[in-house]
Amino acid sequence: MTTETRTRKRGGGRAGAAARRGDAVIEQMPWSVPRNIDRPIEPLGPEGVAAIHDGAMRILEEIGIVFLNDEALEIFKEAGCKVVGDRVHLDREFVMEMVAKAPSEFTITPRNPDRTLPVGGDHILFGNVSSPPNYWDMSLNAKVAGTREQCQNLLKLTQYFNCIHFAGGYPVEPVDIHASVRHLDVLYDKLTLTDKAMHAYSLGKERVEDVMEMVRIAGGLTHEEFEARPHMYTNINSTSPLKHDQPMIDGCLRLARRGQAIVVTPFTLAGAMAPVTMSGAVAQSIAESLSAIALFQYVRPGTPCVIGTFTSNVDMKSGAPAFGTPEYMRSTQMTGQMARYYGLPMRSSGVCAANVPDGQAMWETSNSLWAAVQSGTNMVYHAAGWLEGGLIASPEKFIMDCEILQQIQRYMQPEVIGTGPEDIALEAIREVGNDGHFFGIQHTQDRYSTAFYQPYLSDWRNYEAWEAAGAVWTPERAHNMFKEIIARFEAPPLDVVRHEELADFVARRKSEGGAPTDF
Amino acid sequence: MTTETRTRKRGGGRAGAAARRGDAVIEQMPWSVPRNIDRPIEPLGPEGVAAIHDGAMRILEEIGIVFLNDEALEIFKEAGCKVVGDRVHLDREFVMEMVAKAPSEFTITPRNPDRTLPVGGDHILFGNVSSPPNYWDMSLNAKVAGTREQCQNLLKLTQYFNCIHFAGGYPVEPVDIHASVRHLDVLYDKLTLTDKAMHAYSLGKERVEDVMEMVRIAGGLTHEEFEARPHMYTNINSTSPLKHDQPMIDGCLRLARRGQAIVVTPFTLAGAMAPVTMSGAVAQSIAESLSAIALFQYVRPGTPCVIGTFTSNVDMKSGAPAFGTPEYMRSTQMTGQMARYYGLPMRSSGVCAANVPDGQAMWETSNSLWAAVQSGTNMVYHAAGWLEGGLIASPEKFIMDCEILQQIQRYMQPEVIGTGPEDIALEAIREVGNDGHFFGIQHTQDRYSTAFYQPYLSDWRNYEAWEAAGAVWTPERAHNMFKEIIARFEAPPLDVVRHEELADFVARRKSEGGAPTDF
Repeated sequence: MTTETRTRKRGGGRAGAAARRGDAVIEQMPWSVPRNIDRPIEPLGPEGVAAIHDGAMRILEEIGIVFLNDEALEIFKEAGCKVVGDRVHLDREFVMEMVAKAPSEFTITPRNPDRTLPVGGDHILFGNVSSPPNYWDMSLNAKVAGTREQCQNLLKLTQYFNCIHFAGGYPVEPVDIHASVRHLDVLYDKLTLTDKAMHAYSLGKERVEDVMEMVRIAGGLTHEEFEARPHMYTNINSTSPLKHDQPMIDGCLRLARRGQAIVVTPFTLAGAMAPVTMSGAVAQSIAESLSAIALFQYVRPGTPCVIGTFTSNVDMKSGAPAFGTPEYMRSTQMTGQMARYYGLPMRSSGVCAANVPDGQAMWETSNSLWAAVQSGTNMVYHAAGWLEGGLIASPEKFIMDCEILQQIQRYMQPEVIGTGPEDIALEAIREVGNDGHFFGIQHTQDRYSTAFYQPYLSDWRNYEAWEAAGAVWTPERAHNMFKEIIARFEAPPLDVVRHEELADFVARRKSEGGAPTDF
Repeated sequence: MTTETRTRKRGGGRAGAAARRGDAVIEQMPWSVPRNIDRPIEPLGPEGVAAIHDGAMRILEEIGIVFLNDEALEIFKEAGCKVVGDRVHLDREFVMEMVAKAPSEFTITPRNPDRTLPVGGDHILFGNVSSPPNYWDMSLNAKVAGTREQCQNLLKLTQYFNCIHFAGGYPVEPVDIHASVRHLDVLYDKLTLTDKAMHAYSLGKERVEDVMEMVRIAGGLTHEEFEARPHMYTNINSTSPLKHDQPMIDGCLRLARRGQAIVVTPFTLAGAMAPVTMSGAVAQSIAESLSAIALFQYVRPGTPCVIGTFTSNVDMKSGAPAFGTPEYMRSTQMTGQMARYYGLPMRSSGVCAANVPDGQAMWETSNSLWAAVQSGTNMVYHAAGWLEGGLIASPEKFIMDCEILQQIQRYMQPEVIGTGPEDIALEAIREVGNDGHFFGIQHTQDRYSTAFYQPYLSDWRNYEAWEAAGAVWTPERAHNMFKEIIARFEAPPLDVVRHEELADFVARRKSEGGAPTDF
């Protein structure tokens, strides 16, 4: 059943238009790309930045980094780098020369050009949770393996919320679809249920090529148009410490050669895959990301690249990863300083270790989201829906996180901090004087409806009114909202011809057997 | 029953000493006064600061501020200010001359001098929830009027948690004690259950004088020693817009004349008691606080004063106060800039509008606590235990908030962001190379136990382990911890002679009828 038939079945019309405007279920802020107007928090002085830079360069020069990818090894040799077996030694002059070729800012244009994203500068973009193998919601009250339906529902939330700017990897891994064709079905769902910028997993030639082709088809683009600018991106993780895997590098090389964007995010867990000291973990992370970015710049100068950070720490008791910790916040801020030093956009994440959408989930997630803001992060991955260190996706958590994201977007609006004469409001203060109140005066009436952030999920009623309405705690409110959004969801418009071409492509590639599953 | 008899009954000894060290129930961070090492977030440029300053000064010059206190009016007349009825007009030269007399930093020395607090500079101090009339906990699952036992329990948490530096007002209003003697009983509880710096309500002559006398007795001080430096403080709110009430100013004048500290915190709710625009609400708040501070400096130059902010916004739908909003964060940051402009320490708060300790409570509280950090706040009121816009105190919320406060304290520690050679850890990275992990190496072993923040309340186990342990959500974990802390609480030592003198004072003042209740 295609999106169009579903839309027709439901009737569309005024209600459909209202749903598409996003005002059917909740009142949310309009789509916008916020600018981060705060000066970043910078824990490092110039000597600290120099120390991490020098550390990263010495790692690349003296220790070297393994590329389990023959093509990459050949390219590095051709570039004059020292290659010992599968280990590459990069001197700092080469790395810095290559990194300087990367743009400090670029755009990603999805199938709906109104959703074009500027990546870099003072822009801050939020993406949905990516890649948890499991799903949890309040009606299940259990952790279960992901399904296509759950994945579709989380994609609907991704589309529904204006504060979500891009779609990351699969919002939950739909393990009920065979791995050989999973990318075809999920990308079909992504491209029909959303019109936002999206991601391809770098998991072998076929998947990457299929996804690029599907994004091209959905955008109604010629091959030349597709390659003329980024229409999608990939995100890779290194295999810390100091190793890049075959499929990840292979996928990136394919995207780079076709002008698409690449995010390189080492997973440097301090005390496990990286030094127990945060600046050491950051230095290693920088070395890992810059080595890959240097490769892509050599292959295609100007390839849009982003430095990602996923530096956190382990639980001292169990060795399990911890997220949204004080150490996580500081390493994110430090990485932000390094990304600016290299003139590259930056990615960080909204993360927590909590298993359910409770208080812990919210303080850990708040810590990580504010660290993203403070660090000058440009792309915030996993900004909505993540639980259990990324092992669980939850729709309640998604909706709770979007409430925080909206608040961050409102926080960024310059009008909140205006200090013109009408903001200082001396005449309004004079009018009210030493008695009375500001409710009824013209200055208030003129601004009342837009003066303050209006949440969709926070319940600001007093205890008695809240209790009379059922005493509903936050996650249950989010769950009810989830069900309503899904029930009333209408997919964004997609040209029928492109839609059919997309469906035909999926059918053909399935008949060919999809992609190998020997990864 | 005195604290000593209770202690003796329970046995004390080694277990008692362990409890006093605070390691009996949970492992928490040691007592320390953190330094805020971050550069503040400053939404205003110099012209914005100048605009708010000019607005505040014009309010004081042109509109004037009402002092419902005859003594204050006489003092202002004596100082040469224009007084029209009960309205005082202050010109900016006078205000700035007086404000310049206030110290930018001072100390408060409670009965335990090890708990002496530096107020101002880059110090950040946290205090417990103050003044809610109601109480909620998970076993009640209901909002009830506060009692002395609940108040005592919250004071025990105040003492127990090292991240709480000072005791504010009553952590819950014990309405089961008659208002005439309530201050005697609660201050007795405060001074015996805690040894931290504390507060007197400015609610008429008798209460203020009684509390000063009790603090003096508990500290074993002569009158001269008491007056030689601050041993306590008061906090007053103006009656916005632009009015100071009789008992508040009266109490402050009494404290000022005896060298104690004063926090002036206007409650300027934008759109209700202040302009709907945030910088207007801040300008009005500054005018209200500076007018009182100018009075106290005239009366006793050098009186330790703090600019407080409680500028937030109303809910556009209901008119109810909202807390921890984007507007709240920005007004707190703006007030921080103004406090630095005037060279005064600053107070803000940890706040939320949520009715129960759920996700909303945590994102609103996180927003407000991070705004406190970003604004350069020196005293964070209500930092633990506050719900429903200050109408409810909750022990679960208290313990959850302290988990965030500990994380903020850890975040402030310079060792997290060290970049010396041992932090960059090149040799450790070389040792591990491109395979293996950092768990076992010496660099990790040497630092493992102190490298990372260890939470007491966050559950970092995976879902399965968490589920096997009962699938306990955050507030229930906090509730269990609350019961355990109270069951094992031991009061801090207090000299028996002082203790008896304190009890005698309370008995005598009760026999005299306490304080009037005609406020």
